Amino acid sequence: MASTSSLTLSQALLARAVSHHATEHRRDSRLSPVSLPTFSGLKSITSTATRATTATNCRRVSSRQVRAAAVETLDATTDTSLVEKSINTIRFLAIDAVEKANSGHPGLPMGCAPMGHILYDEVMRYNPKNPYWFNRDRFVLSAGHGCMLQYALLHLAGYDSVKEEDLKSFRQWESKTPGHPENFETPGVEVTTGPLGQGIANAVGLALAEKHLAARYNKPDSEIVDHYTYVIVGDGCQMEGISNEACSLASHWGLGKLIAFYDDNHISIDGDTEIAFTEDVDKRFEGLGWHVIWVKNGNTGYDEIRAAIKEAKAVKDKPTLIKVTTTIGYGSPNKSNSYSVHGSALGAKEVDATRQNLGWPYEPFHVPDDVKQHWSRHTPAGATFEAEWNAKFAEYEKKYSEEAAELKSITNGVLPAGWEKALPTYTPESPADATRNLSQQNLNALAKVLPGLLGGSADLASSNMTLLKSYGDFQKNTPEERNVRFGVREHGMGAICNGIALHSPGFIPYCATFFVFTDYMRAAIRISALCEAGVIYVMTHDSIGLGEDGPTHQPIEHLASFRAMPNTLMLRPADGNETAGSYKVAVVNRKRPSILALSRQKLTQLPGTSIEGVEKGGYIISDNSSGNKPDVILIGTGSELEIAAAAAEDLRKEGKAVRVVSFVSWELFDEQSDEYKESVLPASVTVRVSIEAGSTFGWQKIVGSQGKAIGIDRFGASAPAGKIYKEFGITAEAVIAAAKEVS
Amino acid sequence: MASTSSLTLSQALLARAVSHHATEHRRDSRLSPVSLPTFSGLKSITSTATRATTATNCRRVSSRQVRAAAVETLDATTDTSLVEKSINTIRFLAIDAVEKANSGHPGLPMGCAPMGHILYDEVMRYNPKNPYWFNRDRFVLSAGHGCMLQYALLHLAGYDSVKEEDLKSFRQWESKTPGHPENFETPGVEVTTGPLGQGIANAVGLALAEKHLAARYNKPDSEIVDHYTYVIVGDGCQMEGISNEACSLASHWGLGKLIAFYDDNHISIDGDTEIAFTEDVDKRFEGLGWHVIWVKNGNTGYDEIRAAIKEAKAVKDKPTLIKVTTTIGYGSPNKSNSYSVHGSALGAKEVDATRQNLGWPYEPFHVPDDVKQHWSRHTPAGATFEAEWNAKFAEYEKKYSEEAAELKSITNGVLPAGWEKALPTYTPESPADATRNLSQQNLNALAKVLPGLLGGSADLASSNMTLLKSYGDFQKNTPEERNVRFGVREHGMGAICNGIALHSPGFIPYCATFFVFTDYMRAAIRISALCEAGVIYVMTHDSIGLGEDGPTHQPIEHLASFRAMPNTLMLRPADGNETAGSYKVAVVNRKRPSILALSRQKLTQLPGTSIEGVEKGGYIISDNSSGNKPDVILIGTGSELEIAAAAAEDLRKEGKAVRVVSFVSWELFDEQSDEYKESVLPASVTVRVSIEAGSTFGWQKIVGSQGKAIGIDRFGASAPAGKIYKEFGITAEAVIAAAKEVS
Repeated sequence: MASTSSLTLSQALLARAVSHHATEHRRDSRLSPVSLPTFSGLKSITSTATRATTATNCRRVSSRQVRAAAVETLDATTDTSLVEKSINTIRFLAIDAVEKANSGHPGLPMGCAPMGHILYDEVMRYNPKNPYWFNRDRFVLSAGHGCMLQYALLHLAGYDSVKEEDLKSFRQWESKTPGHPENFETPGVEVTTGPLGQGIANAVGLALAEKHLAARYNKPDSEIVDHYTYVIVGDGCQMEGISNEACSLASHWGLGKLIAFYDDNHISIDGDTEIAFTEDVDKRFEGLGWHVIWVKNGNTGYDEIRAAIKEAKAVKDKPTLIKVTTTIGYGSPNKSNSYSVHGSALGAKEVDATRQNLGWPYEPFHVPDDVKQHWSRHTPAGATFEAEWNAKFAEYEKKYSEEAAELKSITNGVLPAGWEKALPTYTPESPADATRNLSQQNLNALAKVLPGLLGGSADLASSNMTLLKSYGDFQKNTPEERNVRFGVREHGMGAICNGIALHSPGFIPYCATFFVFTDYMRAAIRISALCEAGVIYVMTHDSIGLGEDGPTHQPIEHLASFRAMPNTLMLRPADGNETAGSYKVAVVNRKRPSILALSRQKLTQLPGTSIEGVEKGGYIISDNSSGNKPDVILIGTGSELEIAAAAAEDLRKEGKAVRVVSFVSWELFDEQSDEYKESVLPASVTVRVSIEAGSTFGWQKIVGSQGKAIGIDRFGASAPAGKIYKEFGITAEAVIAAAKEVS
Repeated sequence: MASTSSLTLSQALLARAVSHHATEHRRDSRLSPVSLPTFSGLKSITSTATRATTATNCRRVSSRQVRAAAVETLDATTDTSLVEKSINTIRFLAIDAVEKANSGHPGLPMGCAPMGHILYDEVMRYNPKNPYWFNRDRFVLSAGHGCMLQYALLHLAGYDSVKEEDLKSFRQWESKTPGHPENFETPGVEVTTGPLGQGIANAVGLALAEKHLAARYNKPDSEIVDHYTYVIVGDGCQMEGISNEACSLASHWGLGKLIAFYDDNHISIDGDTEIAFTEDVDKRFEGLGWHVIWVKNGNTGYDEIRAAIKEAKAVKDKPTLIKVTTTIGYGSPNKSNSYSVHGSALGAKEVDATRQNLGWPYEPFHVPDDVKQHWSRHTPAGATFEAEWNAKFAEYEKKYSEEAAELKSITNGVLPAGWEKALPTYTPESPADATRNLSQQNLNALAKVLPGLLGGSADLASSNMTLLKSYGDFQKNTPEERNVRFGVREHGMGAICNGIALHSPGFIPYCATFFVFTDYMRAAIRISALCEAGVIYVMTHDSIGLGEDGPTHQPIEHLASFRAMPNTLMLRPADGNETAGSYKVAVVNRKRPSILALSRQKLTQLPGTSIEGVEKGGYIISDNSSGNKPDVILIGTGSELEIAAAAAEDLRKEGKAVRVVSFVSWELFDEQSDEYKESVLPASVTVRVSIEAGSTFGWQKIVGSQGKAIGIDRFGASAPAGKIYKEFGITAEAVIAAAKEVS
């Protein structure tokens, strides 16, 4: 082992705390409640800061050379052997769990165990008995396939979510230890990762959330919001475009408390990264504006890792990438440093060989007593952290009651009483308007009553109409503001919003682009749905109605594609009241994302629409029939509801009993009682016509085998909107003709 | 104007040709057929090469400083005034067309007109009267909203697709000049752009295609494949993750003939790029391994632009990014350099002011005679290029008949006769196997008979089973090979494949990842469908059947989401014969993408499946009824077809007349005659049960209001596959119960 003389960072930090002023003490004494062995002191108390400055200067002179992290040289008694034992415990818990499941990824946990140990045992501040304690440091395993690393760490740290039996049921039905980290299954896991690159973008969102709350609520005498966000990314995350998007924003925003570890192991599933990944990652990250440190020996260079973290913390104005060169599957004599250890169990023979190689005499899943004892201090330490913070918050609340109430609402997710009264309402006499504009009225009204509402657009704020007029831009030096400028980075935007939403339950992040560009961010939207992040997706220009931009910009299949996605609310409001209703639904649904499809073009304010109607998903806006027996039911959504209404008027003039139904959200309608559904769409009435400027795919469920769905089952076209509507037959005439045809 | 003494690049190149050896002559005399004014010669014939080398060395020493492109100092008579007149013609054609349409983006064409002029008038080799001439240089406007730039250039260059009346019908119904560049509407446009970042990735595919074909078919005595790929990217493209993915691969592959112009104008839709885009793009691209040049004066520094292109061409082993600093809306006195000129018509008043400012006395859409005359040489020049190439190919064909036949098949898209005989067939006695493995058998069989088949996976080759065993890896130094290693870059992969497909009609690119990760590349798949690129998407691990990886990896809504997408073939084969049938369909359909959803798990070879059946989309695999009157119809796809077959056997034992239908492709079934459809799904038989391990969304169309769709309308779970199938009720028992319920 390379490092024979070392000191845990917590020990070192504690030592610093003795001679430092109060502010530093608060940050540095994080593990102070824990009783620690004695040590002989630090060689140079100021060396870190000096070194960090020098490093920055060096980088300016010659950026080709990324400086290796300086190794701490501490004159200390040490228990490196215990550190190594703990690290090997992590490795073998991963090996054993994957072996028992005969499925999983042992390679990353074996290589990243040292950084994992140092983070969870020496650096991070958390309370294992309350994984949701607000001010905890956040950890994200962006390389989510290596989840046994995190499960092993949560287990050692004392989280109740990962007991020994949970490790033994890794990847099994209803276990707390699924195949990739899932926040909704495992308390202690912050976000849901596995799809590569999502985690680092989530981490950017978590760090944004911290910076924003700190700027809004910290006071000169009380730093009530104050935590770091740590993330481990692998080569796969680095190759994904989403990570570049999110990392470009992270430095733009100056997220100094975001520290990313790049597990630089040169192996991906297809073999050596040489076959597809030969860029200079360090240089790219410097180009992105990050502070970059290289830990050359991530396998046993514990002090190097510690020093890198110290240096990263000293850099306040930008995020840090710590490139940690590791050996995938470290310890496996025949499989390490090869793709074969990435995603398969080692096999009994190689497990034995690894036990021998690392000198591990224990049974599977065994945690040696001294390791157990060592980690046991985190339970009382965590309780103390939380208790101290609670006391601090009580003080804060006394002095700053208004801010405290707001912050509380963000931390506990309880919406302020009466918030929904802020929603605007409209009458048929209100001016016709595009739902994107009506959306902006709602956003601005809600921002006043919902302290956790913040968001923005992917460089289309003036088209998506998402600016909050009472607020400025969230920027590096104005992080207290609530308009977020994401640039043309839809995928990163979605995943960052997932991070914000999962930071604290009262955050209500919204983000925006043209509806068609949900294609760029679909992977992030799916994660919103899966991880129960109530992000509001403000998607304007929702059909051929956008006109001249043409088929690349005109959504067709998008409504159908989201209606098919589990745990997702697809909302397509028709006018002002329905837009307000959609926002009401979106705000209330904190555990599923809402996608609002909004028009570019002006729409009439329709009689009969209502917020309450939207809450039911599908409802009658007008009807001249009686006894629940209309001659025909016309069904529309969004911008086509007014077409259905117009067609109904004409048909009624011809003596027909016509019901017009707004079908603003299929999912909400599905959740209504059978009785309600029958009251809207009686089974006996088979003369049904739907109209929607999108794919007819799925509409047969609503109109039935004998009904007719009017829609668009081809790509759009470039022309003025009215012309396309006419040429594509999205007209009242077509509705009337269809109604007669199916009668 | 900064440059008063200049020489067109074509003139300079012609001059060089005089004193250079044959190989250089061929490359450099590209515009030699054109008669040019005399000039006095070059100051230094070797300066470019020297400079390029120096530049490279400099970069190693200090990468912080991106060297500005050296200005050519040529002792030449010049017609800069004509160049400027041509550039202003481009600007005003764009201004006038946007003004007439009252819709569009004048800012980019006004800023990029100089580089556009130099490319189309001085640098690129093309034949306007045959936009499909194989060996043409390719141009991609990745910042597709600026399409009036390209339309103006195509118009001046003599393309029949963009006549004056086409410019006047910009963005109108059925015009050849839609709101964004669309290859299927406008000959001369290579790919379909608008969604940002797609174009640069397409360009990487075009350059890959050139490098691949050149390596396969060029001979020491005949460089039959030899063209450049030029692309203009904007700030928006640069922010999108897809561009980072594709650009990382471009340098990894050493695509030296890819030259990208970065229109560095500091303005995006939301305003100054300072609000969201402050990274160091030059440095990022150097990190990615590109050669980077900065043209500081892109507005009037014509010689700077020319010199940069020369330098870029001299760098053979890596792609070049030419950062061209421009003023968006150059020439508009009140709107240039602001977001207001990005995406709206200038308005009559500002158009007048711009006319005055740039000294443009002409009517709208006017091309001055001298400009017209100047550009008119491209028609004969293009004809000569093509004729010369044809003569060269005739020579080549004589010497290398086999290679010539292959290359011809790639360039004309005619599939080799009898290719389909290579498809493997299976019997019920063939061993059970995963369709991903059967897919690999097909790919390997087809690679032998289809010279244009090449592709690979996003770092999952060994899971997707996509390696062609007779070929090596396409890499920088082995570009003749056909296994492409995309790394974990799904979005870039899809768009690169679009570029390959659109390079030559005989290319059949395939690409692969897990089916769920189509979410990462959906924007590229949609463009495949829109731009008629017959890419084959090999998507394995197509359901909960992948087991332990859990819900982040298990597709649910994906089949439905692609069935709703226009011009897309969604295929889900059930066994060997159906996999072969799916490949047959995918190869035949050169103008729409095919998505193959393939199983991770083993599947039985079923009696009754066939290639011919797949071609019909839905067909009967077994039936014990008569007179087209079964008691019940069971419908399955992919891995659930064997469950339907098993349920049928049980029901038949109970005396039922049961038909089993494979519904491998909804789109193909939709295209069959009503008679055929009735023969498979008779309207009179309403007892129908479908089973598919995915969302039931859309299945009501097939099973009807009275039938039942068995599927999964929630997210998946982490557990062994068999367990999940059972817990989710995707079983023969459930099918039998449902059949009885709906009878």
